[in-house]
Amino acid sequence: MKHRIIPVILSGGSGTRLWPASTDDKPKQFHALGGSQPLIAETVERVRGETDGISFGAPIIICSARHAELTAKQMAEIGVTPAAIVLEPFGRNTAAAGAIAAALTAEIEPGALALLLPADHVIQDRAGFLAVIERAAAFAKERILTFGIAPNRPETGYGYIKRGEPLDAGVFKIESFREKPNAETAQQYLDDGGYSWNAGMFMFDPSVMLREFEPSAAIRDGALAALKQGKRDGAFITLDAEAFEKTPSQPLDIAVMEKTRLGAVAPCDIGWADVGSWDEIWRLAPHDDHGNAKHGPAVALDASGNLLRTDGPKICVAGVDNLIVVASGDAVVILPRARAQDVKLLRELALKLN
Amino acid sequence: MKHRIIPVILSGGSGTRLWPASTDDKPKQFHALGGSQPLIAETVERVRGETDGISFGAPIIICSARHAELTAKQMAEIGVTPAAIVLEPFGRNTAAAGAIAAALTAEIEPGALALLLPADHVIQDRAGFLAVIERAAAFAKERILTFGIAPNRPETGYGYIKRGEPLDAGVFKIESFREKPNAETAQQYLDDGGYSWNAGMFMFDPSVMLREFEPSAAIRDGALAALKQGKRDGAFITLDAEAFEKTPSQPLDIAVMEKTRLGAVAPCDIGWADVGSWDEIWRLAPHDDHGNAKHGPAVALDASGNLLRTDGPKICVAGVDNLIVVASGDAVVILPRARAQDVKLLRELALKLN
Repeated sequence: MKHRIIPVILSGGSGTRLWPASTDDKPKQFHALGGSQPLIAETVERVRGETDGISFGAPIIICSARHAELTAKQMAEIGVTPAAIVLEPFGRNTAAAGAIAAALTAEIEPGALALLLPADHVIQDRAGFLAVIERAAAFAKERILTFGIAPNRPETGYGYIKRGEPLDAGVFKIESFREKPNAETAQQYLDDGGYSWNAGMFMFDPSVMLREFEPSAAIRDGALAALKQGKRDGAFITLDAEAFEKTPSQPLDIAVMEKTRLGAVAPCDIGWADVGSWDEIWRLAPHDDHGNAKHGPAVALDASGNLLRTDGPKICVAGVDNLIVVASGDAVVILPRARAQDVKLLRELALKLN
Repeated sequence: MKHRIIPVILSGGSGTRLWPASTDDKPKQFHALGGSQPLIAETVERVRGETDGISFGAPIIICSARHAELTAKQMAEIGVTPAAIVLEPFGRNTAAAGAIAAALTAEIEPGALALLLPADHVIQDRAGFLAVIERAAAFAKERILTFGIAPNRPETGYGYIKRGEPLDAGVFKIESFREKPNAETAQQYLDDGGYSWNAGMFMFDPSVMLREFEPSAAIRDGALAALKQGKRDGAFITLDAEAFEKTPSQPLDIAVMEKTRLGAVAPCDIGWADVGSWDEIWRLAPHDDHGNAKHGPAVALDASGNLLRTDGPKICVAGVDNLIVVASGDAVVILPRARAQDVKLLRELALKLN
């Protein structure tokens, strides 16, 4: 028997570190930052169809109300008809979204599992991804599954999951979740081998998830009230603002995963990246002979290691190395790759120019 | 008695080293590169009105036919009605323009001197400029005057004028014109003190100039035929293409000045610059506390010595030094100030992108 799985795409991110391409009106997930399609399109495409062991239903998408049209248009472009597009009047973090995902999945297809996926990540190895989903699905009737990314560097920007005793077939109980570590601790995690990056992907039976919300019942109850009292219009469900405003804002990791004893982790190495900075986008992109990654019309003369990315104007550089150059919307950003994080600060300074 | 002077503005330059601001459709002289107004407007404004010794007539402008409207519009914006706008169907260098300048000046105001001025230079000291014109005008009935710029560095990009015996009042006979020197020779010229930069500015009595064209009679005769057979429409005079095409293309320096015995030079130090590169524009511009010169909306964080120039998009830089960044039209150019000359090459590479 194939496991039926409803992908629930969390599209609430803002991606300010990828300004000026990523903006409030058109954040990160709506841009082609990994491959040729916008990240949200690639995320949805990745969980279509079926394998020997799993079969995907139409996706549910949870996004900001301001991106309703953009989201619907994006899905139309790839020929996907979502089972629902849940519109949040404002963000309430991933715990509220997790409760809504559980309730809606149960409503749309009783018996199906929910697979919670951020809309703005890259996964280069789709076959490996589907294989680990299939492997994990065997446990998802009793447990809440996470997918633990094999770390390849002592990254301090992610949370970690320490695996506990093995269940079977490369799936483990979770010993604990760890907050973003300092550099020394991150190196220890890497050396230890028993830690994975927490990529914010979850798979669960809706009834199990809703039950395990018990220690954070206010979040669940608030989110489900906002869903129940929401307005439905075709595939769109606009959450009730009054109920949603009362819903506490917490990550699902903290509200549920750190409290439940039913957590499990499926470690995997699937070419995952959260494309959280222009430097990482340079790293993921194909390079020319001089290490330049180009997106859009660009000329590089005696220049190496640069990211040259444009939505319109030709970028022409000579004699510069290891720079990020991004021309998008009403801004051009230029800074060393090593200072990619300063994009947030530049964005704030640029906003003050108005 | 005041000397009557007709300014003749040579607006035929293309300014490819100032791409992407300067383009074929809107070259250098139509951009504000020195002050707040386009160079051609500042050039015309500089020679309006009168002083104790000189009085300027309405200017003649010689430009490419493709810039007819742009030129007329620019003059209208500063409230100047040109005596004539001569439209060249194609460029034939400054000798042909000099002959036309002489003939038209004689036609428009018999007895007036012609003052030939490139449209795309900066002169910061207007009072000094007017003073040297007044000083030189005393000799312009018998001699062809040039204005020799006091060199402040061993520049290899300009021609030089070696002064000969003094005439009077800081005006000298010309001993010889010198081609662009190598670095060693340029240093010798600077140390010698008897050399000036040839800024391509000339003042003369039309009849003297036309007579001294005798060794290059084909240029004069071709240019005057093109003028005579040209079409007149209000202030516009479109040169006859057939006649103009037969006119040899030479600089006035070579066709006349190196051959006449009537040359004279008035050395001066008037804040002249030919703004021939983005690096020079950075040098001329006001700087912030970190040596950044900004034109248009720009943000600089931990960045120094940069030229940040934009016609539209906000330029936001962090952690970069001594760069030229120019966003204009359909291109963004980024290169070290020390490589400013590479703009020409980048322009050619960018054109191939199409």
